[in-house]
Formats: sequence, structure tokens, C-alpha cells
Amino acid sequence: MKKIVILGSTGSIGRQTLDVVRVFPGEFEVVGLAAGSNSNLLVQQMAEFHPKHVFCLDPPKKIPKGVTFTEMAEMVCLEEVDLVMVATTGSVGLIPTLNALKQGKSVALSNKEPIVMAGGLIKEYEALYGGAVLPVDSEPSAIWQCLQGEDSTIRRLMITASGGPFRTTPLEELAQVTAVRALHHPTWSMGRKITIDSATMMNKAFEVIEAHWLFNVPWDNIEVVIHPQSTIHSMVEFADGSVKAQLGPPDMRLPIQYALFYPKRVSNDMIPKLDTGISHSLTFGPMDPERYPCFDLALAAARKEGTLPTVLSAADEVAVEAFLQEKIGFTEIYRVVETVLSEHRLLPGRDAEELMEADRWATVRAREIIRH
Amino acid sequence: MKKIVILGSTGSIGRQTLDVVRVFPGEFEVVGLAAGSNSNLLVQQMAEFHPKHVFCLDPPKKIPKGVTFTEMAEMVCLEEVDLVMVATTGSVGLIPTLNALKQGKSVALSNKEPIVMAGGLIKEYEALYGGAVLPVDSEPSAIWQCLQGEDSTIRRLMITASGGPFRTTPLEELAQVTAVRALHHPTWSMGRKITIDSATMMNKAFEVIEAHWLFNVPWDNIEVVIHPQSTIHSMVEFADGSVKAQLGPPDMRLPIQYALFYPKRVSNDMIPKLDTGISHSLTFGPMDPERYPCFDLALAAARKEGTLPTVLSAADEVAVEAFLQEKIGFTEIYRVVETVLSEHRLLPGRDAEELMEADRWATVRAREIIRH
Repeated sequence: MKKIVILGSTGSIGRQTLDVVRVFPGEFEVVGLAAGSNSNLLVQQMAEFHPKHVFCLDPPKKIPKGVTFTEMAEMVCLEEVDLVMVATTGSVGLIPTLNALKQGKSVALSNKEPIVMAGGLIKEYEALYGGAVLPVDSEPSAIWQCLQGEDSTIRRLMITASGGPFRTTPLEELAQVTAVRALHHPTWSMGRKITIDSATMMNKAFEVIEAHWLFNVPWDNIEVVIHPQSTIHSMVEFADGSVKAQLGPPDMRLPIQYALFYPKRVSNDMIPKLDTGISHSLTFGPMDPERYPCFDLALAAARKEGTLPTVLSAADEVAVEAFLQEKIGFTEIYRVVETVLSEHRLLPGRDAEELMEADRWATVRAREIIRH
Repeated sequence: MKKIVILGSTGSIGRQTLDVVRVFPGEFEVVGLAAGSNSNLLVQQMAEFHPKHVFCLDPPKKIPKGVTFTEMAEMVCLEEVDLVMVATTGSVGLIPTLNALKQGKSVALSNKEPIVMAGGLIKEYEALYGGAVLPVDSEPSAIWQCLQGEDSTIRRLMITASGGPFRTTPLEELAQVTAVRALHHPTWSMGRKITIDSATMMNKAFEVIEAHWLFNVPWDNIEVVIHPQSTIHSMVEFADGSVKAQLGPPDMRLPIQYALFYPKRVSNDMIPKLDTGISHSLTFGPMDPERYPCFDLALAAARKEGTLPTVLSAADEVAVEAFLQEKIGFTEIYRVVETVLSEHRLLPGRDAEELMEADRWATVRAREIIRH
């Protein structure tokens, strides 16, 4: 039995991780579950999966006998744990990710912010302590799957992007779009933060950053291709020009299961299959940088490394939250992030403390900008 | 240096194989070249690549000193040979393929007929003598590439088909289409026999047969999908439902190079790269069995095994030649093959002799049917 901890168990990826675990009762033991504020669902999950350790920002009134309340940063270090699913949102996943890697654990990373903030540090920890980051998001998972069995140099990664809910919205309307519209993603069902990040393409920049670090590919060799159907999840071009793609219906349970079982593939009827019996088109096109200014902004910050990607991630987290609370308009997300980035005094960011400090600074600064 | 023999060196695949060899002068030594009737081109190839052994059905008047005239069946057995490219057409490739496998050589197989005729025998020889068949055609090569690094069971192979030059031609016009039109393939530049086989989809059936044997996939788990752009060369669905595809511009030099260098991938500027900078669509749809009756006919014969697939292949070879010589119409290709198959008394076909006997019988019978 693989012994797992799930951080963010009541969120979209956490619930789908448990959907997969439920199908394979003999394969996984859920050692720990950590949730944010949804203590009702956590109580249900505890009753079903019997974790020995739980955490909740808003703890349930009573927890069953034999269950220990354990901070995430400690839960991931428990000796018996084989794999940690980091399905939190935002910077909260950073310390648990680094801690788990320091213990040589496998970290299935759905939460992109830790790798955006600390890509270099994470790779260093992998090399030093023998753990590994396993991508969970569909695009990095697609690249990872395409790389199996290949030791060729990578000429190019082609990350596909649906273009989000505003791919065809007139540019002049973007300032007025509502959170409700932005949350209506055309192909993927995901959490709120990542859905807004998909609408601004901040999420796509995060995937480029993740791919750069995880697969050691130079920035200039990573392309984004608009592909509204989200059927091809990403592509890899090898030394000889041959391209491999991974595809399937947009459903997160496949990449989740792939990371949980890696390197095995197992049959699961719950996962929808590609339908080739009907006539259909897959379309591809270039990304319009004017429509998605957050994308270039994010990559410019990522290339500078140090504390700048952390500031990017923190400012975006605050700005997206403010947009969801209708405190700022959609196009102001860019403005807030851009302002915070431009004010930041870049530091090397060589340890978690410095990164968390930059995260706090940017969070405070973004909130101030939004208030004024 | 990998020491290679090329059978069919003056044909389309043979010439493209030498195009690849030319780019990597330190990697390959051309030990032998065998041609059909194009002795002029063979003479040029001899001057450039200095093979020690040559063969030609219509031999050049004089061959240089130190060059030996060697039958194909022997050339492939020469001790120094590492890899044999079988780029002949029709049944002529069978004995050289089997002989090379008996010597434990790698056989890059572009010529599909040997595996259509003797798929079971070829797999048996691989297992017995340690040689291997390396697919060269783009679709089986795509499947082979997708399978690298995967040990999952295969749920499904999806072989793409352009649909050929008559994909949208009204069915009632098919009886009248000319060889010139049939030779004008929409996406691939190939030899004459295979181009006509693409128009009837006999070629696609041959690819299904090849995939069935090479990758050990049950008949019912192999699908054909019409994909007119020929960008995705084929797809594999694994146990978990994840699908991998291999894609690229339609150019045979990539699969040729992949087989020559396997398991390495090497950079080659001559091979065109996928262009993702422009907006484009890839379309997919089901195959219409009424338009391509040869497809079901061929697979029914292949499923019965024994000498029947050999008869299929031989009758098709004669019928296609007769169509190219304007002795029969396009839709009569089916009629000829169907008649010869229906008259054949099935034998187990457990050795090359029995298969070649069935090949001769079917060739004679198909010619008689065409004459009357």
C-alpha cells in the first residue's frame, strides 16, 4: 500500500484525488488529510478514509479518537508517508513541498505556486535528498508522459492553452467582465483561483515556469499554442523533429491517477475515454499577447529569478481574490501585479525564509494598492 | 559505423534512406544496394556510396572492380551486416526479410507485404533468433515511438488515414477514375504501388495487419480514423485511457531515420518541423466502409491467417499493376482481389515455401481473371 497525505483535500484536486483512491481500495492508505475552511467535508472524508492525521484552518469541533491534529509542514514529514499530494492553492504549499522533498518523499504537485516561487530550490532538493516532484496538472503531466522512454534532447515544448472564457471577447469589454463569467471555464472544471488564472493566462505562464524547471528546458524553447478544445494537453518536439502529444478528454483524474500510480498505468472506468467515432476538429493558433498581458509579465519576472517569481505569485493571489470579491475589475489584475513587481527590490531568494518574506511583502503591498 | 544493406535502393524509400545516410557520413557504411530495373540510378548510387555488394533485376553493363553481384537473399545474410532496410515492393521482400531475421539482424521494414504475408512467422523468427523488425512506415513508426518507455497494456491503437485522393469523390465516379488521378496523393509522396493502395485503403488494412503483428494488439483493438491532414501519424491508448500521438509534417525521412538510428534520436535540418505559428485545424472522422471496400476484405482475410493474407497481397499486387496499366478500372481492384480470395483453398502457411507457392498461385489466378 502506498501511504499518502493529501494537502487541500476538500478542494477540487483533493476531492478528485480521493475519487481515484476510492476506486483502488487495496492500493493506498490515506495517512493524512489537510483542508482549508471546509471542515464539514473534511469530517466526511475522515469518516470514509480514516486518516491518522488531519489539519484544518477552521478545525471541526471534535475529531475522532486516535486522530491527531498535525500541521501540514509536519504531516508531510511523517516517516511512513510515501507520497504527498500538494493540492493547496497559493504560497501555502511551499513549505510543505520543501519539507517533503527534504525527507526524500515523492511530491505530486498540483499547486503550481511552490514551483513558480522556488523552482531552482525544488530541483536542488530533489538532487540532494532523492525525492521527486511529480506533475499533476494536465499540461506538465502530458509533457512528463511524452518524455517517458526518451533520452533525446528536447527541441521544443508546446504547451496548449484553451484560451479561457475570454478568448473571443472584444478586448474593450474585458475591463467589465464579471467574476461569474470568468469562472465559467470553457473546457476544464477547476478551483476558483486557477480558473481566473486561466482567464488571464497567468496560469499558462505558471505552466511554462513549471515546465522550465521540471524538465530543464530553456525558456526560449517553450511555446504556448491556443487550442480551444483542450484535447491535446501538450506536445514535445525531440532532437529529430518528431513530436509526441498526450491527449484525452479534459478530466483531471487522469493526471492525478498517473502521478499516484507512476510509473504504472492502471485501468479506471471512471476516467472518460477519447471518442474517435465522431467527426471533429482540433484547432490551433498563436496566442495574442495583447489579450493576455499577464503572460509576458509573468515570464519576464520568472526569467529574472530570485524573489521576483514569488512576488509575481503573491501579487496575483491577492489580485485574483480581489477580483473574485468584486473589489477590482478583470484587467486590473494585470495592473496590480505589474505595479507590485515594478516596486520590488530583487533578492537572490536562495532559501525558503527569504521567499516567504518576499511573499508577505508582496501580499501586503498588493492589498494596499487595491485599497487605494 | 552501422553496416547496412538497402533493398530497393532506387525506389522512393530507398532514395530517401540514402538521403539520410548522406547527412551522417560517419555513422553508416553501405555494404549492399539492391535495385529493381533502374540500373542508371543504381550506378550513380554505387559511385557515391561504394557498396561491396549490389543486385539489380536489370543489371548495369559493367560493375566496378571489387563489387560483387549478390542476390538479395544472400546479401542480407552477410556477416558484417547490422541492419537491412527492406524497401522493396510486393512479395519480393519476404525471403530476404526472413533470411535476415534468421541471422538475427535488425530489419527496417518499409515493404509491408512480408509482414502481411507472414506476420506470425516473422514474430516467431524474432523470438527464435534475436533479430527485430523495425517499422519504417509513418503510422507503425508513430505507434512504435508512442510505445517507448511504456509497459502498459494497449487498450487501443488509432491509425490515422488521409483518406487518399478519392475521399470526397462521388462513389459513382470511382469506377472511372484514372491512374493519373489515383497517383496524386493529397499529403504523401510515395511509390506507385503504395499510392494506389492508399486510394483503395488496402494500404491502411496492411498497416492494421502490421500493427497487429508487430505490437501484438488484438484485431478488435485497432481502429482507423480518417485524418486528411496526415499530421498525427497514429495514436496509442494505454490502460488508463491516456492517449499518446506522434505527429509531424508528412515526410518519410523522419521514420526512416528513426529506424536507422534507433534507439537514438539525432538532429537533422533536412527533416521539416511542425509549424505551430499559424492557425490550423486537424480534422478527424470515421472511415466509410462503402467507399473503401478493400479495407474490410483485407482484414477478413488477415484474421483467417494461413495462406490467405499472402493471396490477398499477391492478388492486390497484380490488380494494382493492371490498374496502373489501364487494363482494369479502379473499382475492379476490389473485384479481382475478392474473386481470387474466394477461390483460394486455405492452407496453414507455416513456412516460406508454402507462402511463396500461394503467392505464385494467386498471381497467376489474378492475371487470368484480369485477362478474361
